[in-house]
Amino acid sequence: MKVQGRDLRPIRGRPGRDAVEIIDQRALPHRLVFATLATPEDVFTAIRDMWLRGAPLIGAAAAYGLALALRQDAGDAALHAAAGRLRAARPTAVNLAWALDRCVRMLQGVPVAARAERAWLEAEAIAEEDVQVNRRIGEHGLALLQAVAARRGDPSSPVRVLTHCNAGWLATVDWGTATAPIYLAHQAGLPLHVWVDETRPRNQGASLTAWELAQAGVPHAVIADNAGGHLMQRGEVDLVIVGCDRVAANGDVCNKIGTYLKALAAHDNGVPFYVAMPTSTLDLALADGAGVPIENRSAREVTHLTGLNERGEVVEVRLTPAASGAANPAFDVTPARLVSALVTEHGVIPARPDALRALPR
Amino acid sequence: MKVQGRDLRPIRGRPGRDAVEIIDQRALPHRLVFATLATPEDVFTAIRDMWLRGAPLIGAAAAYGLALALRQDAGDAALHAAAGRLRAARPTAVNLAWALDRCVRMLQGVPVAARAERAWLEAEAIAEEDVQVNRRIGEHGLALLQAVAARRGDPSSPVRVLTHCNAGWLATVDWGTATAPIYLAHQAGLPLHVWVDETRPRNQGASLTAWELAQAGVPHAVIADNAGGHLMQRGEVDLVIVGCDRVAANGDVCNKIGTYLKALAAHDNGVPFYVAMPTSTLDLALADGAGVPIENRSAREVTHLTGLNERGEVVEVRLTPAASGAANPAFDVTPARLVSALVTEHGVIPARPDALRALPR
Repeated sequence: MKVQGRDLRPIRGRPGRDAVEIIDQRALPHRLVFATLATPEDVFTAIRDMWLRGAPLIGAAAAYGLALALRQDAGDAALHAAAGRLRAARPTAVNLAWALDRCVRMLQGVPVAARAERAWLEAEAIAEEDVQVNRRIGEHGLALLQAVAARRGDPSSPVRVLTHCNAGWLATVDWGTATAPIYLAHQAGLPLHVWVDETRPRNQGASLTAWELAQAGVPHAVIADNAGGHLMQRGEVDLVIVGCDRVAANGDVCNKIGTYLKALAAHDNGVPFYVAMPTSTLDLALADGAGVPIENRSAREVTHLTGLNERGEVVEVRLTPAASGAANPAFDVTPARLVSALVTEHGVIPARPDALRALPR
Repeated sequence: MKVQGRDLRPIRGRPGRDAVEIIDQRALPHRLVFATLATPEDVFTAIRDMWLRGAPLIGAAAAYGLALALRQDAGDAALHAAAGRLRAARPTAVNLAWALDRCVRMLQGVPVAARAERAWLEAEAIAEEDVQVNRRIGEHGLALLQAVAARRGDPSSPVRVLTHCNAGWLATVDWGTATAPIYLAHQAGLPLHVWVDETRPRNQGASLTAWELAQAGVPHAVIADNAGGHLMQRGEVDLVIVGCDRVAANGDVCNKIGTYLKALAAHDNGVPFYVAMPTSTLDLALADGAGVPIENRSAREVTHLTGLNERGEVVEVRLTPAASGAANPAFDVTPARLVSALVTEHGVIPARPDALRALPR
């Protein structure tokens, strides 16, 4: 996507194939900062500490990390060790394992001397496929937005979309998953208004989704995570669309903590609740959402927060009493019964086992 | 309640009857700051700008504000003007109107020369009654907590309570509404663990409830507002108890924004959802929750946040991109169907019109 006229992606392989350039998302929305990751350990740290995040993006990043590892040692033991290390960077999003499994499977049939180059090409392929997949999710989602606009009948009145966390282009290689329909609709001239859930504790909505939408000129308002249910009760949300970190074989959706609450509210108010799902996020090996490993992150993400002070400096402040602890589960599971449909690159499908098994893999 | 050995209340009339001393809650949890309100306009500002907040507390504060006004002019016109002005400070909590109506009704039968003194005594009476009402809510709620503990059968395992916003002693004259059962249970030696919803955007949970619980030594953890549904899914919440700002004749409950989402999650997971309701918060004139005036507060409460920097200074930081706006509805309505019971000073009753009409008034 364009940022101040410049075509940006959150990750790019360097032409010399010796490093990747990323946007260090920890500095957004206040600063646009880039970082260079030259070793697999750099990539591991960047994923674990969330310099970059988003299920599709950490999949692509891990693939590049593996390619960087193989520049040092491409033997079988090193290959498996590097994949194992990168896989452990974060537990919940299945795309990390999906991308590494795909690379390892392919590389096992490749002579050791050729592996580093082939791994790099595979990482590039994963990244480019992600762009195409999201573009297709966008086209299928656009049809849903256009259908809402047609039903509402007033072409000047915006379609009001609520989204949680950041399933935007910063969470992928480009376009985003949940945001791809929004960007295509905006480019097509469909009036939109996006309610952006702040998404505590890391504020990916307030800092990343809001920044993306502001850059693209899409009308939006940031809201506290608490507000979405009320807006739905008052008829101010036409549909919800979110991303996902892992979808189980029965259609249960694991996504950013708080997604489940919005799905409950959408269901209670008859608001369609869509999940944008690249098939790389589907985990058919998992029977249902109860089995998803839920990452517990640092209490400090709840007790402290980073923002811009009045002198324009990014500073950290403490919100809670010194004597108070915090708990910080990072994801939750939305049962399939609350999901209106999954928007995949192959079309819009119900969150049901039969439909998921029938997807091309 | 005691703070570092000192018996504190969030509001106290000065013995000279010329001012009230309050805790300026905007400085918590980082500083314990007191303020003196000597004029009705001081009280108006303190309510509107949330130096103090909480439905029962702003009722008591408004009564003191009226008494201060009558020191200047106690005629009928001045009485009604002062009540009207104070009533307009905040729209949602009915206790404000309730306390003012009670005072005006009583004062109309009092000679003008005696009104200021009588108004002060009435404000003191409202404050003292609030303490007693909350104590009784606490006793009825304690029985609910003890019943949960008995059902769970393991006396060493804590009863896990989730609460939203601050319906603590800082929201009342003492004890709190939702917290009164918690404090009584803690004093009775019942092991407890309280999940404290942060309560964005003003963080009354993270800054006030957490501070209260820490002062009282009640085990607790602050959580993002997004986390409660997940904790309920995982069986980590035994019951939810919240306060309220206005309850309609049909049992619909208006409370801090986000309460509705927790009620949905509690219902979906079979977790009891209790609302602590002094009868001063009941508005029988309102048929249902759709009629509650919902306050929209400043966007800045969403886009900016106050915390303690590493030098120990309280500073404000911006969270969102400069180009992004925000919306900030401050309350929502939980339908009566999602409320397990109302905990009142007269006992635990269903959220039903017949039970509400039968309450002593």
